[in-house]
Amino acid sequence: MSAALQQAADEQEPMHELARGARQAARVLAQSGRTMRDAALRAAAASLRASAEAILAANLRDLDASSAGSAFRDRLTLTPQRIEAMAAGLETVADLPDPVGRVLAEWDRPNGLRLRRVATPIGVIGMIYESRPNVGADAAGLCLKSGNAVLLRGGSESLHSARAIQDAMQDGLRAAGLPAAAVQMAPDADRRHVAAMLSAAGLIDLIIPRGGRSLVERVQREARVPVLSHAEGLCHTYVDGSADPAMALAILANAKMRRTGICGATETLLIDRSIADAQLPGLIDGLRALGCGFRADAAARVIVPDLPPADADSFDTEWLDAVLSVAVVDGVEGALAHIARHSSSHTEAIVAEDAAVARRFLDGTDSAVVMWNASTQFCDGGEFGFGAEIGVATGRLHARGPVGLEQLTSFRTEVIGTGQTRPD
Amino acid sequence: MSAALQQAADEQEPMHELARGARQAARVLAQSGRTMRDAALRAAAASLRASAEAILAANLRDLDASSAGSAFRDRLTLTPQRIEAMAAGLETVADLPDPVGRVLAEWDRPNGLRLRRVATPIGVIGMIYESRPNVGADAAGLCLKSGNAVLLRGGSESLHSARAIQDAMQDGLRAAGLPAAAVQMAPDADRRHVAAMLSAAGLIDLIIPRGGRSLVERVQREARVPVLSHAEGLCHTYVDGSADPAMALAILANAKMRRTGICGATETLLIDRSIADAQLPGLIDGLRALGCGFRADAAARVIVPDLPPADADSFDTEWLDAVLSVAVVDGVEGALAHIARHSSSHTEAIVAEDAAVARRFLDGTDSAVVMWNASTQFCDGGEFGFGAEIGVATGRLHARGPVGLEQLTSFRTEVIGTGQTRPD
Repeated sequence: MSAALQQAADEQEPMHELARGARQAARVLAQSGRTMRDAALRAAAASLRASAEAILAANLRDLDASSAGSAFRDRLTLTPQRIEAMAAGLETVADLPDPVGRVLAEWDRPNGLRLRRVATPIGVIGMIYESRPNVGADAAGLCLKSGNAVLLRGGSESLHSARAIQDAMQDGLRAAGLPAAAVQMAPDADRRHVAAMLSAAGLIDLIIPRGGRSLVERVQREARVPVLSHAEGLCHTYVDGSADPAMALAILANAKMRRTGICGATETLLIDRSIADAQLPGLIDGLRALGCGFRADAAARVIVPDLPPADADSFDTEWLDAVLSVAVVDGVEGALAHIARHSSSHTEAIVAEDAAVARRFLDGTDSAVVMWNASTQFCDGGEFGFGAEIGVATGRLHARGPVGLEQLTSFRTEVIGTGQTRPD
Repeated sequence: MSAALQQAADEQEPMHELARGARQAARVLAQSGRTMRDAALRAAAASLRASAEAILAANLRDLDASSAGSAFRDRLTLTPQRIEAMAAGLETVADLPDPVGRVLAEWDRPNGLRLRRVATPIGVIGMIYESRPNVGADAAGLCLKSGNAVLLRGGSESLHSARAIQDAMQDGLRAAGLPAAAVQMAPDADRRHVAAMLSAAGLIDLIIPRGGRSLVERVQREARVPVLSHAEGLCHTYVDGSADPAMALAILANAKMRRTGICGATETLLIDRSIADAQLPGLIDGLRALGCGFRADAAARVIVPDLPPADADSFDTEWLDAVLSVAVVDGVEGALAHIARHSSSHTEAIVAEDAAVARRFLDGTDSAVVMWNASTQFCDGGEFGFGAEIGVATGRLHARGPVGLEQLTSFRTEVIGTGQTRPD
């Protein structure tokens, strides 16, 4: 630990103290069965509903103290409907299959040893998130379901809301006979609590950041604890010469315009040179009708002259807006070369009828998720069938892509013998 | 990145340059089939044998420059037999099943999307190791087999040996038509190369340290890149009241004394109070006959008075020597409580005939590997059936326990559609 971090850790003893309590709670949680954990989730849902008035009052205190703009205020605002959605979310998670105790692999050795890899909780998870207070309840629900204790650190603007939600979650734990310390939050809005969490190697097993780029970058820079990182999503959709034109437009319109602000939104259209003359104008018209703007390379502007030109950074920009970069490429190999240069390795899609070309594309990228004839906006835990997600991981280890309950587990190996000893 | 690390990164541009070359090579490797990768491994084995004289000469230069003691010199020394073992090791790895391209999961969604999780290489692996030069060849073989490029940084004492081995590995890659940059090493013994590797976020995907505690701690402290960490192995063997006495002695003798210096060696004997009077003296006699010394708690010393007393640190000490800590505990719950307090979460074993007690033990620890009626020294990639191992992981994410080829892979998710778009 660097001297600076060491000092931060010492000053922030309170956060480490909470983490030690969370570790104790995690041990109890890991030994509890799914019946108890699911009961705690359902009791927490009931408690959220019963505490709705107190939660709304706390949220009003946060809103009164906030001077932020309207988009931010909207994310911060709780309503009876949003509280009901949180409660229903916990019940949905309670209904999901138990991710703990799954037998992941089983094999025997010639000496008679039997080995089994069994899913276990990870332990203590540190969740660092920004404005939306409901993220705390969602994350606590997923952690509880998977047998993990969680330490929450929300944005300073949502402190009162987050505390009211935590109180309801802890009521649920107590009602089910589980330790309340399994869900805890930072005692106040001091930013140094984040440093204390990031330096808590051995006390916190995994940090999950959820927020803007500056938060994620700070976490990746400072963390001494493993991080389930989420970098940007600079996603590509490649329209191959063999694509069905109507399907290409439908997929592209959805991939770009359904929600422009999510990480699975397509940011760049790559179009095969062999069909660009015939197909690009129609694709552009269709997207323009939906309110999309463009940054196009020279070859695309020869075909559709009124497209605004791309500049040096366009193809490296995650727009998160109604803007699409457009480049003409030489077939699937051209598309793969462009993706290798510019992608953030999140999600890429090909639209093609030629199965061999599609297979080449699926095998040829280095990205977490690759799609054939589907919208990149399907990169989502719910759409993947995970029931719920705690985020999308762009690292290469442990979890990659949407993160659901399975990715909140670790494993142990059981070795069952009959007295075997190891030969020299 | 902290200012200090940023500066280190700038000064160490050479290492980052190598990493960029490794990234290019990793892309080629990921696209190559197992046939090419296995051919490269076999060609590298042939090249190691053909270069044996040059490797031994380089090793002699390292030995001449070294002023270290004899145990260290032994680890540093290469012989024709050790070179043959390296070559044969590469051929063994070539014969193992391909870890890349395995279908890890497959499922369908109600909207007709088909999803497949497929194993992929991780990318660029940084291996930081100490004296034994053969570790470089072993690690390079496992990385190559799993489609990863590797950047090696061995100990400064083995620089010439390591370079001669790298040359042979690169000959193998070239002979198979693969880029030589897939196996590279630090250009000289400058310690700052380690800092450069640890700061290479985005250039190196995973750091694997292999060496003593100070190396591992430095890596965990400084790394901005994910680390496959290997902390200590403070392993316990608990002898339950239901244990077969002869089996208990045989397992304990093996778990403690087969090799005392490996991480899977048992460091503490926990014995059930209900049988301690009857069984402890025989266990102690049996171990003493093998040259084992002891540190015992008060209850054990009441039964065997001439046992040396444990001090405050004994039960937290990884002896790595012919020394065994001994404690009397109250049944399986007492054993689990002791383990929760003192274990490094590596490997624990129970000797018991009572299946319910054994199940309670297997479920009740928080360790990577738990064993029933088997020696803790079985915690090893070869013994687990992995064919070869690159180390033992004590973290909770991605890999846990022995690390073989499977753990050197990541995965991607393929989503195959027929034009689906995501509803609002």
